[in-house]
Amino acid sequence: MKNKFYAYIQQLQDTITAKLEKVDGVAKFKEDLWERSEGGGGRSRVIENGAVFEKGGVNISAVHGALPKSMQNYFGVQDADFFACGLSLVIHPNNPMVPTVHANWRYFEMYDKQGNLVDQWFGGGQDLTPYYLFDEDAQHFHKVCKEACDKHNPDFYTTYKAKCDDYFWNTHRNEARGIGGLFYDYCKATDSMSMEDWYNFETEVGNSFLEAYVPIVEKRKDSRYTKEQRDWQEIRRGRYVEFNLVHDKGTLFGLKTNGRIESILMSLPPHVQWVYDHHPDKGSEEERLLKVLAQPKDWV
Amino acid sequence: MKNKFYAYIQQLQDTITAKLEKVDGVAKFKEDLWERSEGGGGRSRVIENGAVFEKGGVNISAVHGALPKSMQNYFGVQDADFFACGLSLVIHPNNPMVPTVHANWRYFEMYDKQGNLVDQWFGGGQDLTPYYLFDEDAQHFHKVCKEACDKHNPDFYTTYKAKCDDYFWNTHRNEARGIGGLFYDYCKATDSMSMEDWYNFETEVGNSFLEAYVPIVEKRKDSRYTKEQRDWQEIRRGRYVEFNLVHDKGTLFGLKTNGRIESILMSLPPHVQWVYDHHPDKGSEEERLLKVLAQPKDWV
Repeated sequence: MKNKFYAYIQQLQDTITAKLEKVDGVAKFKEDLWERSEGGGGRSRVIENGAVFEKGGVNISAVHGALPKSMQNYFGVQDADFFACGLSLVIHPNNPMVPTVHANWRYFEMYDKQGNLVDQWFGGGQDLTPYYLFDEDAQHFHKVCKEACDKHNPDFYTTYKAKCDDYFWNTHRNEARGIGGLFYDYCKATDSMSMEDWYNFETEVGNSFLEAYVPIVEKRKDSRYTKEQRDWQEIRRGRYVEFNLVHDKGTLFGLKTNGRIESILMSLPPHVQWVYDHHPDKGSEEERLLKVLAQPKDWV
Repeated sequence: MKNKFYAYIQQLQDTITAKLEKVDGVAKFKEDLWERSEGGGGRSRVIENGAVFEKGGVNISAVHGALPKSMQNYFGVQDADFFACGLSLVIHPNNPMVPTVHANWRYFEMYDKQGNLVDQWFGGGQDLTPYYLFDEDAQHFHKVCKEACDKHNPDFYTTYKAKCDDYFWNTHRNEARGIGGLFYDYCKATDSMSMEDWYNFETEVGNSFLEAYVPIVEKRKDSRYTKEQRDWQEIRRGRYVEFNLVHDKGTLFGLKTNGRIESILMSLPPHVQWVYDHHPDKGSEEERLLKVLAQPKDWV
């Protein structure tokens, strides 16, 4: 399974970066290969200062070795070895009418000290963070998520949409990071879902990403916008930073276990503002976004 | 003691904000009074878009009540009541040649459930974060810190300078946030230092702040700078955000215990950049700063 999934994310990285370069038309992804001293490494691809994409990263990694102490507590296990691989992406477009997107697909294996595989699971998801809310874009994104889910289980979309709203919640602001999508974790073999079934589900979601996001980019990338709208985008990006640095388990885990800093923090937006006690005007588009973020809603 | 110290920080807030307004010449601090539902409140003063200061906050607060659960674990005590007050400030100037400064002076009391005072201590300090390093500025700042310390104990400067270097360390970047200053905490009565002595030390440091910082501002505020130097300042401000959101105990404590978000996060810089894998040119001023931040040095 691990070789098959790793081959899949390598291929998916190629597909996604090729398509995003085509959409951008100007900038190319810069590739960095890196190694982890304790075992494994990764292939980071970052795009900056494009015509459409201001900054974005599409990274894969496959790491293995002894499970670090901090991870032992996290998973509630003692001495163990692990293998983990995944693709992680965050795209910050220039135009405030184009939403930021994040996606991640990962696979984890755990071994006892005799080298026996004792646990394995998939996790992942994709979620959208608009700065200006076009209902039809949110509906499109969620519709693609739902279609991918529905092919595997009629309950998945509802369950994983709710988990996404729950996870990407900026507790200290009491608001959602964005308008959600899918989030699932610890997807292990059960009577109804084999690991092969989970692989098929995970890759179904991975394959749906470009269809979920690119039509929105194409539709909004040439929208006109004002300096005030750009400022609002940068202020909202501040909330994105707050979530990633204060709450996101993946980011904190990476920072505290000696991951490759630049690959972990490629998720941070290029230009960001913090304005003291900022509140949008009553009745504005900006205020409407905040109202939706205060109370996650159903989009399909 | 608590009334005396609270009166002191009210007065100090007035003195500091009046002086900074005078230095800025254009912008005025905006005041917000706030209340904490569980007891107490604060007086936040924020300056934005000044001629000299791009964003800054000088806040005081005095809060009391039952010690929150999360704080019980933090202090290793059970059911208790507490009182805490302090002044906290962060100033982000426009000009990249003028350093960012942070300072905090605080006093804490703990009571048992019968209302008996069972513990009390002072904490505080001040530290400087330059974007371009002028040795004479760093020396001046540290010299003022040392003079304040030396009036109370010949070892304080060395000890609290080292604690400052240790505390403001961006572990995940393996570099200091800035060039340090003073940091001390849990200053409790001993044979050689009564609480009154600690009060005198704390207020000595508080009174030294303007002398430590303002001459540097006056000297550098009209320096010419390029767009590239401004970009560097914004990139370095990103490290400031990383420290405050990932490592700073005060910020995280505030975020996780329902503090007033805007007062806590007033410390975040106004305009910030994250550039993927940024490295300054060899032999540049920017590179020299990084070298100093990699290995805290003695300034006096």
